[in-house]
Amino acid sequence: MTSNKLVYLFKEGNAQMKELLGGKGANLSEMTRIGLPVPPGFIISTRACNMYYDKGDELLQEVKASVEEALQSLEVEMGKKFGDVNNPLLISVRSGAAVSMPGMMDTILNLGLNDETVKGLAKASGDARFAQDCYRRFIQMFADVVLKVDHIYFEKTLENKKDSYGAHDDTELTAEALEELVEEFKEIIYNQAERNFPQDPMEQLMEAIQAVFDSWNNQRAVVYRKVHKIPDDLGTAINVQTMVFGNLGNDCATGVAFTRDPATGEPKLYGEFLVNAQGEDVVAGIRTPLGIERLKEIMPDIYQEFLDICNKLEGHYKDIQDIEFTIEKGRLYILQTRTGKRTSLASVRSAVDFVKDGIISKKEAILRIEPQYIDRLLHRQIDAKAEIKHIAKGLPASPGAASGKIIFNADEAEKLSQQGIKVILVRPETTPDDIHGIVAAEGILTSRGGMTSHAAVVARGMGKPCVSGCEALSIDLEKEEFLVDGVVYSKGDIISIDGATGRVIVGEVPLIEPELSGQFREILDWCDEFRSLGIRANADNPPDALKAREFGAEGIGLCRTEHMFMVQERLPVVQDMILSENKEEREAYLGKLLPMQQVDFTGIFEAMEGLPVTIRLLDPPLHEFLPDIEELVEELTKLKALGGDSERISQLEKLLKKVRSLSEFNPMLGHRGCRLGIVYPEIYEMQVEAIIKAAVDLARKGKKVVPEIMIPLVGHAEELRLMRELVEKTVAEILKKEGQEIEYMVGTMIELPRACVVADQIAHHADFFSFGTNDLTQTTLGYSRDDAEGKFLPHYMREKVIPENPFVTLDLEGVGSLVETGVKKGKAKKNDLKMGICGEHGGDPESIIFCHELGLNYVSCSPYRVPIARLAAAQASLGKKTGGYGD
Amino acid sequence: MTSNKLVYLFKEGNAQMKELLGGKGANLSEMTRIGLPVPPGFIISTRACNMYYDKGDELLQEVKASVEEALQSLEVEMGKKFGDVNNPLLISVRSGAAVSMPGMMDTILNLGLNDETVKGLAKASGDARFAQDCYRRFIQMFADVVLKVDHIYFEKTLENKKDSYGAHDDTELTAEALEELVEEFKEIIYNQAERNFPQDPMEQLMEAIQAVFDSWNNQRAVVYRKVHKIPDDLGTAINVQTMVFGNLGNDCATGVAFTRDPATGEPKLYGEFLVNAQGEDVVAGIRTPLGIERLKEIMPDIYQEFLDICNKLEGHYKDIQDIEFTIEKGRLYILQTRTGKRTSLASVRSAVDFVKDGIISKKEAILRIEPQYIDRLLHRQIDAKAEIKHIAKGLPASPGAASGKIIFNADEAEKLSQQGIKVILVRPETTPDDIHGIVAAEGILTSRGGMTSHAAVVARGMGKPCVSGCEALSIDLEKEEFLVDGVVYSKGDIISIDGATGRVIVGEVPLIEPELSGQFREILDWCDEFRSLGIRANADNPPDALKAREFGAEGIGLCRTEHMFMVQERLPVVQDMILSENKEEREAYLGKLLPMQQVDFTGIFEAMEGLPVTIRLLDPPLHEFLPDIEELVEELTKLKALGGDSERISQLEKLLKKVRSLSEFNPMLGHRGCRLGIVYPEIYEMQVEAIIKAAVDLARKGKKVVPEIMIPLVGHAEELRLMRELVEKTVAEILKKEGQEIEYMVGTMIELPRACVVADQIAHHADFFSFGTNDLTQTTLGYSRDDAEGKFLPHYMREKVIPENPFVTLDLEGVGSLVETGVKKGKAKKNDLKMGICGEHGGDPESIIFCHELGLNYVSCSPYRVPIARLAAAQASLGKKTGGYGD
Repeated sequence: MTSNKLVYLFKEGNAQMKELLGGKGANLSEMTRIGLPVPPGFIISTRACNMYYDKGDELLQEVKASVEEALQSLEVEMGKKFGDVNNPLLISVRSGAAVSMPGMMDTILNLGLNDETVKGLAKASGDARFAQDCYRRFIQMFADVVLKVDHIYFEKTLENKKDSYGAHDDTELTAEALEELVEEFKEIIYNQAERNFPQDPMEQLMEAIQAVFDSWNNQRAVVYRKVHKIPDDLGTAINVQTMVFGNLGNDCATGVAFTRDPATGEPKLYGEFLVNAQGEDVVAGIRTPLGIERLKEIMPDIYQEFLDICNKLEGHYKDIQDIEFTIEKGRLYILQTRTGKRTSLASVRSAVDFVKDGIISKKEAILRIEPQYIDRLLHRQIDAKAEIKHIAKGLPASPGAASGKIIFNADEAEKLSQQGIKVILVRPETTPDDIHGIVAAEGILTSRGGMTSHAAVVARGMGKPCVSGCEALSIDLEKEEFLVDGVVYSKGDIISIDGATGRVIVGEVPLIEPELSGQFREILDWCDEFRSLGIRANADNPPDALKAREFGAEGIGLCRTEHMFMVQERLPVVQDMILSENKEEREAYLGKLLPMQQVDFTGIFEAMEGLPVTIRLLDPPLHEFLPDIEELVEELTKLKALGGDSERISQLEKLLKKVRSLSEFNPMLGHRGCRLGIVYPEIYEMQVEAIIKAAVDLARKGKKVVPEIMIPLVGHAEELRLMRELVEKTVAEILKKEGQEIEYMVGTMIELPRACVVADQIAHHADFFSFGTNDLTQTTLGYSRDDAEGKFLPHYMREKVIPENPFVTLDLEGVGSLVETGVKKGKAKKNDLKMGICGEHGGDPESIIFCHELGLNYVSCSPYRVPIARLAAAQASLGKKTGGYGD
Repeated sequence: MTSNKLVYLFKEGNAQMKELLGGKGANLSEMTRIGLPVPPGFIISTRACNMYYDKGDELLQEVKASVEEALQSLEVEMGKKFGDVNNPLLISVRSGAAVSMPGMMDTILNLGLNDETVKGLAKASGDARFAQDCYRRFIQMFADVVLKVDHIYFEKTLENKKDSYGAHDDTELTAEALEELVEEFKEIIYNQAERNFPQDPMEQLMEAIQAVFDSWNNQRAVVYRKVHKIPDDLGTAINVQTMVFGNLGNDCATGVAFTRDPATGEPKLYGEFLVNAQGEDVVAGIRTPLGIERLKEIMPDIYQEFLDICNKLEGHYKDIQDIEFTIEKGRLYILQTRTGKRTSLASVRSAVDFVKDGIISKKEAILRIEPQYIDRLLHRQIDAKAEIKHIAKGLPASPGAASGKIIFNADEAEKLSQQGIKVILVRPETTPDDIHGIVAAEGILTSRGGMTSHAAVVARGMGKPCVSGCEALSIDLEKEEFLVDGVVYSKGDIISIDGATGRVIVGEVPLIEPELSGQFREILDWCDEFRSLGIRANADNPPDALKAREFGAEGIGLCRTEHMFMVQERLPVVQDMILSENKEEREAYLGKLLPMQQVDFTGIFEAMEGLPVTIRLLDPPLHEFLPDIEELVEELTKLKALGGDSERISQLEKLLKKVRSLSEFNPMLGHRGCRLGIVYPEIYEMQVEAIIKAAVDLARKGKKVVPEIMIPLVGHAEELRLMRELVEKTVAEILKKEGQEIEYMVGTMIELPRACVVADQIAHHADFFSFGTNDLTQTTLGYSRDDAEGKFLPHYMREKVIPENPFVTLDLEGVGSLVETGVKKGKAKKNDLKMGICGEHGGDPESIIFCHELGLNYVSCSPYRVPIARLAAAQASLGKKTGGYGD
């Protein structure tokens, strides 16, 4: 008749019975089952809870019978009796659903005390003050959670009592004072609840049980379940457990301990305890706890017992445990164990150690590590021991910490950096013009822009700390200062930023250098054994490429060529090229750019020797390389108003006219990508020439180079056909002239919804697809990345209109569905089509799992995320799933 | 053994044998078959052509045998003999594939002439000059197309001959002069082709046949077939036909005639002819032809015969025929008939007349009318008889013609218009600020912007003529003038524009008023009998709504509310609302807007009484209502440089700051649509309140109103859930207060790729979907409508990178495929979901057919396109198909 059983002793349950016994109950049962000294108790099952809603009082009668039976079992085990006036058994009552849920009734301690048993407790403990204090606390809790009497009455009365006794603290109240308080508390109950405080322990218990059952359906709990889609018929269980006390003398103690050092993962007990104390005393910090190793001296037997238990628990749960314990009169009780929170470092180290100790397998170790955490291991961090107060908090746009002088101007940042002075570049927001300043700075701080603003993206790409969108900063560029909370910070002042948390701190802070530790390397090597997804990096220059390779990248998945155009000494040539009146003029300037581009590619190819390098031909609209319209208008208006140099005016007017003619309402949807290559084929021809000439030179030196030429923003198959024709023609001419053979591929970005939908047609002309999920997210969702994060997106995320920032984690239902269409249609047309993903999502663990599920060949991400990608890819191979598509 | 037959007499073929006989041959056969006096002839089949490529000379021998047989048949019929020195049979040789194809050998006339037969022709015709002229023309054509001798030699020799005889014109050359020319022509052939001109008529014919066969594979023809995907093995046929002459005396004539007036459709013969003339004389315009009715006096019997033939042909082809005829010595020959090109008016009138005469069915009449043509019937046109010379040509952005004074400023346009002066508003491009000027002007002319620029869209919506993107205009707004080809046109000068062709004309032009003629109404009524697709209109104000209803709209499918915010006297309130510092302030300004909005809706509801009205809540980003940043910067810089009023400066600085904070990099993908409603719910609440209050007021007066409230730019189901909640709550409050019941719906635009992909989730919260294909095209293709048409799109269309302007005709493969996904997913979730399409494509016939195929409930288009939509919808019901998906 198990199915009608309402009450389970701890020793009758186990960890698998969570649904019936609740999470807390199942865990207490499990510990009991494996022989740990858990204070005995029993669980009123969720089944009872559900039946209660049907049967009400009738059910309570059935429960009462089972509870009485279970209590007897406890009494036998503890050698105490419930309601006994000499040595009373005291119990705690706690709710405990299968899912943890706020709003439910929480805890009643010391249940079983009344005017008589309190004397028994005083006698048994030899401490009248302790007994009275337990009693008055019990009354207060019972009144609050069962009788719904506002706790303010009790607090007020307690205050008065302390005043009248001249006590500053509760602990200074004597047994007599507390006894008076008990009487006053009972009076409050009589006045407020219009009834007497129940003296019968069984009555106390049954009222508490009913209160827990009722709390399952209180308003806060119901709303919480609705929001979190928790079924109403899950019900809650109730845990009834024997009280143990760590404050009954010097053979008593209470404490907490981790089985390993949660900061470093070092395999040694780590924790603290207090002799003759309650759990709350450890937390309250009134007395200084002792290090757990001191227990060895004070209670050597118990220490050894505890050590054995710790080992047992770690072995059982196969992870670092965070354990609460109490010693009552020389007897050790384990009150709770849970997986210990630890640093990323400790997480990695302990996982490797567990594998070496044969406790877990490599697979388990890999699956255990949270990819997000290891990000921190790759960047400098603020020393956790330092006391830090921040003046403002922005978005954690690129992890790592940095200190330096406040500088507002990219040129100046570059100059100072060359003198060896560390600077933090502070801007309202950055533009491609600031690139050299970003390169030079230790870190970037912006007052506008989101997680995917220019500053954020560029900084992450470089592995440089960045705090963006720090709106508390009011920047005055002219005065070269910023204001926070009325305080002025000027150029040259030292600040620090923490890109992992978004904090802005005054002055310098102690930093910890990152380390790709031995254990970290080891676990990543294991990942490579398991993963099937290739990992590439996005890198636009040789240092980034080298860094990526060091981190384990198997190629470059996206080499953007526009950053090469932005280099300060090239920009004037690029601008002249754009402002050219005709093709001949344009070709002349392109001719000047050709050798520069060739040098770029040579460097990258050398760094990635033997590995594939995907180079994307020019993508951004040309006006991005030209001066800002507003600045031009301002300069021109000023010159005109003040009667300035007429030659300069006419020059500016001409420039303004051209910039205007190139400017666009929506550049993201404008004349860019392959649309440039189709209208100005000479630009792409120059780029292809530079790529192939670089490859030829290296091939002559016996170095293998695998260029993959990528055409951006293709929406119609005809676009790719034309561009492929251009590439093949250009390459053939060079190779013929050079008398050399080079293997290369031509493929395309799939970054428009249309491209996904007609991927079969496009596949016809492609050797590979690279899903550009940044732009695909922008077009699929109709979100401008540059705007959304400063405008409606924060509101959307705060109000849960959308679950996550779609520029960070791939929107599986929308964008992911289109990617899936693209993959299926591409494969259907060309079975061996190579497919990958580049863009921010390539370094996001959830998105990486999705790519694995889709059967892509590789993901490509910023060099600093390559280790994360290796881990996530391995986890995907080991069966980790995405959240999946919801409704 | 039909299957081996190589040559078919005209009388052996019919219209169905196009593939075997080519288009021309099948048509000549058909006319012969129904007993028309077609000069007899035969066809060498496409089968022969294909066999020629395998068998070469051998095949030519087989063909020769069949040709000789067929020639005998012709000789018998004509009573002449091929190569006869007394009365020679002359023939023409023409290529004729199943598909008409440039680059193929065209025509040789008068084949069969040589030094002997030319004398026979002179004798038989009694005109030696005529005979020699025929001969020299034949030699020239033969040399050109068969012997590949450059025609320049012949032309030069002809010129010399005219000079030496002092003749200005060919016709002034005598028989002797022409005979000399023949000799000289033969000499050219001997020198250039290194062979003699063939004197044997059979040899002439066989060489001509081989030349046609060879021309099927010449380079131009091969490329043409490749581009147009015409199979290479189609082959060409060859038509050999007896020559007839209209210039052998006064019992001869030649002419052309339409069976009905091609301008008006009036059922009477319409054409002209010349007595004793060749076809080219009619075209050349040297002699003035006579009206066809004069033939009745001059040759009454032949006239009657011709009339009968015309009726027969019309009855046979069931359409207006454009007929070429020749009368040789009192005998009528029909040389060609084809469907007559006619005006839209004639098209409609004749179709209706054909139905009434029982020649075609209503269905056939409906399917015959080209929807594009009838657009013209709804707008004023330039009188076709007027002689017009245009100074420039822009894009035909909105049909209709208009004349008026050049005005460069919207305010001035409004002022003059109020004084009754007609103006054409000329701007580089228009913005929402110019709306009142567009309303006031007769037509709009812009130098920038495409078919879907602001000016174009607004003008089309108002049914007002517009020529956009007229780049030849160089506008100087300060001087109030524009320059075209070095000529200055100033403010106040009169110009005319023709929005149907894009022409810009100096001075006034005679205009024809549009008319929804009786026949037009009739055919549209028939359309309504057949179509299943509903037709609604996009209208934002009562006059447009009334116009739409007059044209047959069954509701409003899209009422945009932003234009209501743009009205000049409201804009300041709207701006104050946007610049508000907090919600309270914003609500105060919204309170001022509420009664204005209510008036708008009352007017529209009244106009559409009893029909559904879909109102879209505010959609554009708020900065569209604010001043332009550049203008602000200019004013501010000027004030600062000149030390202007400091209060004004600080005011401007504040304004600039706000405008900047609202400005976006890509407004199209920015803070707009329901994102506004979610962040500023008070704006949507005000709009809903205005809608429902207007509906309640009318309901009280017994007028039925069916508001459909539409939420724009939904991408996530949660957005619609929230907005639906807001709408329902607002409505419920008002109805409760007013004590009135109103039926209404809440639906959404589907205009983002994501919305299509998750349409099932969205459908859960929607009563209807309206596919906003304008924005969906922008996001799916990644084209900014405002930019594309001025930048890369013209290049794309010119170079055929894409087949059509996707903003005019729905991109079926890309956007269409997503719409299909949206429809399927929406229906799967909610079977009775009402679905329609609004936006430009709703008025495009090809797109309308697609909507019908998808099973949408309605299309919505601008009022002036409602008749077109009714027609296209009926054609779709009658089985007309879209081009379909390619590849």
